[in-house]
Amino acid sequence: MISYCTQCRWLLRASWVAQELLTTFAKELSEHDGELTLRPGTGGIFQVYIGDELIWDRARDGGFPDVAELKRLIRDRIAPKRDLGHIDRAALAE
Amino acid sequence: MISYCTQCRWLLRASWVAQELLTTFAKELSEHDGELTLRPGTGGIFQVYIGDELIWDRARDGGFPDVAELKRLIRDRIAPKRDLGHIDRAALAE
Repeated sequence: MISYCTQCRWLLRASWVAQELLTTFAKELSEHDGELTLRPGTGGIFQVYIGDELIWDRARDGGFPDVAELKRLIRDRIAPKRDLGHIDRAALAE
Repeated sequence: MISYCTQCRWLLRASWVAQELLTTFAKELSEHDGELTLRPGTGGIFQVYIGDELIWDRARDGGFPDVAELKRLIRDRIAPKRDLGHIDRAALAE
């Protein structure tokens, strides 16, 4: 679930992140009958949840997630053995 | 909730419709703590639900919804008194 602030006009950002995640994790989502919810909010909210777990919180984590980092965080939880390809190699090189 | 077929690569179409609905019904969604879910599926599925009610089904309704028509169908259910502006005027003119 992605919560975003409508006052800040973050719908486009939230739906971009949604499309990234739905594309990258298409296999895992289809295997687990998964889905992704967009939830409008206010007050500068930008949060990403997996189930009840808050994976990213703009207030807590100091800004927006880098989408590659967000994918690694989600991969670590839902498919820890999966190789994300160049995203992982770039992280190793850092 | 929007269900879309990943085999048919309808994610972009589904997220476009999601953005249209989240924009048009932002007020109603915020008033009712609402959200919109994207659900990957297979086999040519393209369905739009409000709660348990199937508003649009590509198989049943013979194709994809025109987004203006889809908004009228949803408006009629969640905010029947609301004027959708040029969308309603175009429908009257038809």
